[in-house]
Amino acid sequence: MRTQVVIVGAGPSGLLLGQLLHQAGIDNVILERQSAEYVLGRIRAGVLEQVAVDILDEAGVGQRMHAEGLPHEGFDLLVDGQRHRIDLARLTGGRRVLVYGQTEVTRDLMAARAASGQTTVYEAANVTLHDFDGERPWVTYAHGGQTHRIDTDFIAGCDGFHGVCRASVPRSAITEYEKVYPFGWLGLLSDTPPVHHELIYVNSPRGFALCSMRSRTRSRYYLQVPLTDKVEDWSDAAFWDELRRRLDPAAAEALVTGPALEKSIAPLRSFVSEPMRFGRLLLAGDAAHIVPPTGAKGLNLAATDVKYLADALIEHYRERSDAGLNTYSERCLRRIWRAERFSWWFTRLMHRFPNEGEIEHKFQQAELDYLLHSEAGARTIAENYVGLPLDFGLRRA
Amino acid sequence: MRTQVVIVGAGPSGLLLGQLLHQAGIDNVILERQSAEYVLGRIRAGVLEQVAVDILDEAGVGQRMHAEGLPHEGFDLLVDGQRHRIDLARLTGGRRVLVYGQTEVTRDLMAARAASGQTTVYEAANVTLHDFDGERPWVTYAHGGQTHRIDTDFIAGCDGFHGVCRASVPRSAITEYEKVYPFGWLGLLSDTPPVHHELIYVNSPRGFALCSMRSRTRSRYYLQVPLTDKVEDWSDAAFWDELRRRLDPAAAEALVTGPALEKSIAPLRSFVSEPMRFGRLLLAGDAAHIVPPTGAKGLNLAATDVKYLADALIEHYRERSDAGLNTYSERCLRRIWRAERFSWWFTRLMHRFPNEGEIEHKFQQAELDYLLHSEAGARTIAENYVGLPLDFGLRRA
Repeated sequence: MRTQVVIVGAGPSGLLLGQLLHQAGIDNVILERQSAEYVLGRIRAGVLEQVAVDILDEAGVGQRMHAEGLPHEGFDLLVDGQRHRIDLARLTGGRRVLVYGQTEVTRDLMAARAASGQTTVYEAANVTLHDFDGERPWVTYAHGGQTHRIDTDFIAGCDGFHGVCRASVPRSAITEYEKVYPFGWLGLLSDTPPVHHELIYVNSPRGFALCSMRSRTRSRYYLQVPLTDKVEDWSDAAFWDELRRRLDPAAAEALVTGPALEKSIAPLRSFVSEPMRFGRLLLAGDAAHIVPPTGAKGLNLAATDVKYLADALIEHYRERSDAGLNTYSERCLRRIWRAERFSWWFTRLMHRFPNEGEIEHKFQQAELDYLLHSEAGARTIAENYVGLPLDFGLRRA
Repeated sequence: MRTQVVIVGAGPSGLLLGQLLHQAGIDNVILERQSAEYVLGRIRAGVLEQVAVDILDEAGVGQRMHAEGLPHEGFDLLVDGQRHRIDLARLTGGRRVLVYGQTEVTRDLMAARAASGQTTVYEAANVTLHDFDGERPWVTYAHGGQTHRIDTDFIAGCDGFHGVCRASVPRSAITEYEKVYPFGWLGLLSDTPPVHHELIYVNSPRGFALCSMRSRTRSRYYLQVPLTDKVEDWSDAAFWDELRRRLDPAAAEALVTGPALEKSIAPLRSFVSEPMRFGRLLLAGDAAHIVPPTGAKGLNLAATDVKYLADALIEHYRERSDAGLNTYSERCLRRIWRAERFSWWFTRLMHRFPNEGEIEHKFQQAELDYLLHSEAGARTIAENYVGLPLDFGLRRA
């Protein structure tokens, strides 16, 4: 088999890239290690920046997102028992975010993929990359008891942090930056109405919490927990009790509880690998970088990586120019480091760090006191939360 | 002897408090362990916030400060080889700072003290505080071979970090917060014109540097150095060479060098002790808190502590109300934590931390990239640098 671009990974990054390339008439094949059902079962982020919304619109998959997504013009920070609203729209000249679950984005992209007629191979085992440092890369994989070969022009690594693509690059060609946080997030999904119509980010003496949602009837809540905790340690009742303790009295009172549809513990990690291009292999999304989820940047960064990559590949085929491919890494990385910085900073600001001294906790409380009582301070939260413009990566403002 | 207020310490805090109390007709005695010459020989800060300027004006010691001080409406941050101006005036609605050395402030206050006719005892040894938890505190000290006793209403601890006043408080009554930084500042004072008409704060791969000044003909430069360095390790030539390496080419070229009038290494520390009142003992300035010098907050915090303390004592005598004394700690501490937070944050932003990983360094560079290209980001630096209004401590904005 031969195609123009082999995309490894059928999460939102790979599917979105496939769709943008397909729209431009660029033939592509997606290889995914898991089944479609497995991919849809992963519970992930739910906040889209306007830039990501625009890219999904451009990909032609925005209809249900606009019908069902919830535009949010602000969120609350609950600090020292007081809720303070970060008015995104006022602080950023009218910008806002859209709450629409990553699972729904994936479902919409899967539908578009099916309609496109392009090949997607689920449960592709032993995906192996060959000769991506030369002119004629090829990929092998096992499926249905046979080994298959695809010859291609480019390989797009959209296969996440644990994927094969980044792992195929020689160690000497890559620089990795990593920070693991000393706590995890215990998440619970339930078919209960959200406690508040906007998100509540909670800095409490008992640790961080987040009241989020996927729709008007489906809630997603998180608790900061020690890394040593197991999900089995947390009954639904224990989760709800602990969440209530971290909320203000009004929110604790308003909280509607119900059985968990899903409950899991995720570690928090900051990770960047540089560069993102290795000859004819290009990484995008979680394959190249991970943010802690506090800033809701993971899916948004993946969307802009993919948009830059699609533009670069389209430029290659249409204009026979590799200018976009040559600047792909740099263009992505300036935006990525901005988002990594914000995600790290917002994580530090909102969590209890078990290994830090009391003075660091006092600095954290003083920083919140400053940020919540300064227009400029609140704006630094808001403008990072709504995200950077699409053309940011190329500008030196 | 009997007086209304015994002030321990004749640095700028003690002298300023003595002057404000004297103006209000409150009798006071200052006890200082060192000689006047020794106090004047200590090289300290040189940047006054408008609030500190106003307090010095109120104390009647502003004449020379206004004649010789240099109003600064901005400063430069040198990052990644590029200078970026923080336009304090534009970013804060016209506010600015005044460059005027602490040594000069002290000299002006000493002159006022001499004119006031109030008693100042230099080289007072073995200062000991008694019964400050009761109604009738008293202080003993040795001078001229004799032990003296002063009965008093209040004791003001203006005797710095290593002073006797905080050390006289039972450990159980006090909570201390401390952070020591893993580097020091090597400072050099020289009678050379400043390299630039405003300050330059330098974040370089070789570490932090600061180009500061005391006047149009006297410069003060600093280099971040390892804590293991000794001042004897640094010849003047070595200092100038290293400073040049941390500057941009234009500044390195413009740098005028000369013999050091003074050269010393200071450790960097964040420190706060709470509360600041213990019965009839009240701490002010460095006796209660230390900031790393990066944010130029030390003298400014001392001035506002002293102003709050003077107001509280005047209220006590004039209106027979202890309201000001009862809220003194709280009023000071909210302002102090804001300044401590900014000083810690600005120190983290500008220095190389030898014990941190590469990802932290990338976060730092991304944070600078953000702050220097965002109006709101630059404003968070500027508004903290020019400082808080005097009535801040009592407001919950």
